[in-house]
Amino acid sequence: MARNTTVQADPNAPAVTELLARFVANHASKGWSEAVDREAHRTFANWVGCAIGPSRHETLQAALAAVMELSPAPQAAILGRCEKVDIANAAMLNGISSHTFDYDDTHLKTIIHPAGPVASAALALAQHLDISGRELIDALVLGIEVSCRVGNAIYPDHYDRGWHITGSTGMLGAAAACSRLLKLDAARTQMALGLAASQPIGLREQFGTMTKPFHPGGAAKAGLMSALMARHGFTSSRRALEAPRGLLQVFSDKTDWNEITGRLGETWEIAENTYKPFACGIVIHPSIDGCIQLRDKHQLKAGDIEKVTIRVHSLVLELTGKKTPKTGLEAKFSVYHSCAVGLLYGRAGEHEYSDEVVNRPEVTALRARVFAIVDDSIAEASVDIGMRTMDGRDLHIFIEHAVGSIEKPLSEAQLEAKFMDQSEPILGREKAGRAWSLSRGIAQSNKLGEFIAAATS
Amino acid sequence: MARNTTVQADPNAPAVTELLARFVANHASKGWSEAVDREAHRTFANWVGCAIGPSRHETLQAALAAVMELSPAPQAAILGRCEKVDIANAAMLNGISSHTFDYDDTHLKTIIHPAGPVASAALALAQHLDISGRELIDALVLGIEVSCRVGNAIYPDHYDRGWHITGSTGMLGAAAACSRLLKLDAARTQMALGLAASQPIGLREQFGTMTKPFHPGGAAKAGLMSALMARHGFTSSRRALEAPRGLLQVFSDKTDWNEITGRLGETWEIAENTYKPFACGIVIHPSIDGCIQLRDKHQLKAGDIEKVTIRVHSLVLELTGKKTPKTGLEAKFSVYHSCAVGLLYGRAGEHEYSDEVVNRPEVTALRARVFAIVDDSIAEASVDIGMRTMDGRDLHIFIEHAVGSIEKPLSEAQLEAKFMDQSEPILGREKAGRAWSLSRGIAQSNKLGEFIAAATS
Repeated sequence: MARNTTVQADPNAPAVTELLARFVANHASKGWSEAVDREAHRTFANWVGCAIGPSRHETLQAALAAVMELSPAPQAAILGRCEKVDIANAAMLNGISSHTFDYDDTHLKTIIHPAGPVASAALALAQHLDISGRELIDALVLGIEVSCRVGNAIYPDHYDRGWHITGSTGMLGAAAACSRLLKLDAARTQMALGLAASQPIGLREQFGTMTKPFHPGGAAKAGLMSALMARHGFTSSRRALEAPRGLLQVFSDKTDWNEITGRLGETWEIAENTYKPFACGIVIHPSIDGCIQLRDKHQLKAGDIEKVTIRVHSLVLELTGKKTPKTGLEAKFSVYHSCAVGLLYGRAGEHEYSDEVVNRPEVTALRARVFAIVDDSIAEASVDIGMRTMDGRDLHIFIEHAVGSIEKPLSEAQLEAKFMDQSEPILGREKAGRAWSLSRGIAQSNKLGEFIAAATS
Repeated sequence: MARNTTVQADPNAPAVTELLARFVANHASKGWSEAVDREAHRTFANWVGCAIGPSRHETLQAALAAVMELSPAPQAAILGRCEKVDIANAAMLNGISSHTFDYDDTHLKTIIHPAGPVASAALALAQHLDISGRELIDALVLGIEVSCRVGNAIYPDHYDRGWHITGSTGMLGAAAACSRLLKLDAARTQMALGLAASQPIGLREQFGTMTKPFHPGGAAKAGLMSALMARHGFTSSRRALEAPRGLLQVFSDKTDWNEITGRLGETWEIAENTYKPFACGIVIHPSIDGCIQLRDKHQLKAGDIEKVTIRVHSLVLELTGKKTPKTGLEAKFSVYHSCAVGLLYGRAGEHEYSDEVVNRPEVTALRARVFAIVDDSIAEASVDIGMRTMDGRDLHIFIEHAVGSIEKPLSEAQLEAKFMDQSEPILGREKAGRAWSLSRGIAQSNKLGEFIAAATS
């Protein structure tokens, strides 16, 4: 028998479950600026590329083999592959794939990777419903608004407790997007959000294992199923988010309700989405950016470089100070390796974090000539790089904000290059190019079939 | 970018993920006493009846309609029904059904309803693997051991925070049971437990909605999929339960590791399982038990009773003090209605909590003559009942422990009667009887087909 414990309710908790449900159900299609709509398309296209890239990775292979034991109906595509599975498992598999390389989008305010749960669920369901790209983008914008606003309300306390916030808010975004696609009314959308609220996914302890990318995938599936069940009359608490024993108060000591209610429908979280140009932790990005800029400006080759010294905030070395990585995964936590490939190849995509590249003699030789100095007067998002060349020149560059940050977003060409870099080895050049064009302009598609054909094998 | 927050690790946390995985993978079949094995069979048979009873309820109808949108392969049965669905969704649907009437089993130490997540997952997978009843019971015992031991370690703090502990530990029990059925080695079982640890399900805020019974169903599905994915090489943290950012420390301020490690494999949580004789909250059970005993002993009819006075602990009225319930669901929170049906009909099954019975004139008339007095000198699990009859007699009974408690467990006849009461309206008398015999002796079945045929329409 339960003891009768007293819960300290937040007396100011507004009815955010209902508020968000009405917002999702009723907001006008494309009810935002052109700039927001453009960012939504960039978010979608970036997510597609990130899902295609790892589509043959052992992480996805293992998950797919498990799903195949269910003999799923061929309802929806797995990006980059030829198999189809039921919509719930398609949502899961694309969600897993898109986070496998840790190369997807980032909502920097909460470090949520917003597209994984939301786009994975929405694309699977949209295919099945055979609806337009416009509706898909609408669902993506609204779903990401829900998960990121909830994230804003509870970050950082919730994250600090040990939750992987991408999966533990993502099921709400996925439920919202799928409710929108199913055209549920506000009351049923509220039930979908409530049911999803009982299914947060993800411990930070899983970082470094396949379960990390499972988190957005699991959240996508949970959100999609929640919307389907609500469609058929399944009920949940009308106050599942804000009640004293609702999600937010169970999840976090910080519950800033105004982050959910304030200017809802006027500001858009997707507008602040960012895309990684390099396939490693964001803390290394300024150093790689600086190395590539020095290389390009001075036409440097490996033999030209005597010594590189980076001055960075202590956090950079704390997180990525691995001096002699042996594997691709270890190299993602090595600012030294990352500078070396930036200088040698002018890039740091997933390929530059393969075991083969990490152990290449020219890479290990150059990385040994990269030195780091901790200087906490330099911001975490910045770097100061000095270089001595073999012919005695002293070169220098200061990077305040790396490419890919909000202040210096990826250009269209860079986003396309990232997409092609991931997709071409899987789909071939022609199909990859078509997949890029179609995903970058998905709202123009009346049907999704052409896009799906291009983005699968 | 994440701030670098310090987590206060518990320095005494033993490697319980690995310990439990080895235990599940390696413990001998039927490696426990006859008494434990008997209780496992009672747990299974009680769960089967509780899943069959609500198999036509709107809660299950809504969930099933959503699952049907996935066009699932007909791999496993939904108890009490004719449809088959894929094993993951069969696990979910049977889990939902078995908790819909709040009539299933209770591990009183943690108020976990242990069979829901574990038996639902195990039965679905066992059918698919076409294995014996012995292996099914083994998996049930081991799975329940895992979820209840983890529950013991974190109860009550985890529950007080607002988690519905049945679903938020059940995914571990389900993963354990399914790993056992799949004959995963200890290393893969550890991965299954780790993956499940990222998927806790259930907020107490959902009590009173369909999402409450979803919790064991969702946990069953999550655990089953975790085992399937681990089978195919999916990885997770080897310390997913005990790490500083592992499940237990994220979940609860209380982490009594000894509850997991102490005498593992020697004592058995399933031996302490209990089964409700009445379809309402346990706090009312002593009052119903007393009323039925008075009725039977004195051959009482409604017209014989002038007044009933129950002396109870304050918690009883706090939780179930509804004097004039209008619906069946409200009546489950009315000690007055419950006493009335006990006196009138000698029972308080799901039928006595139908809207029709609740509004019957003879029921409302008698319940108006039931009075309660709060007396905190009486234990929560007890009641003191005084009755004045129309012919002027003063009758009295004191119930220390109600039928269905550990101290006074349901007899075989009572358990069978409960099973038949739920199953007969669905399956008919003959099939229901066969389903009872086969489930009560399931370990004797080399194949599960005969049992499944009896327990479905």
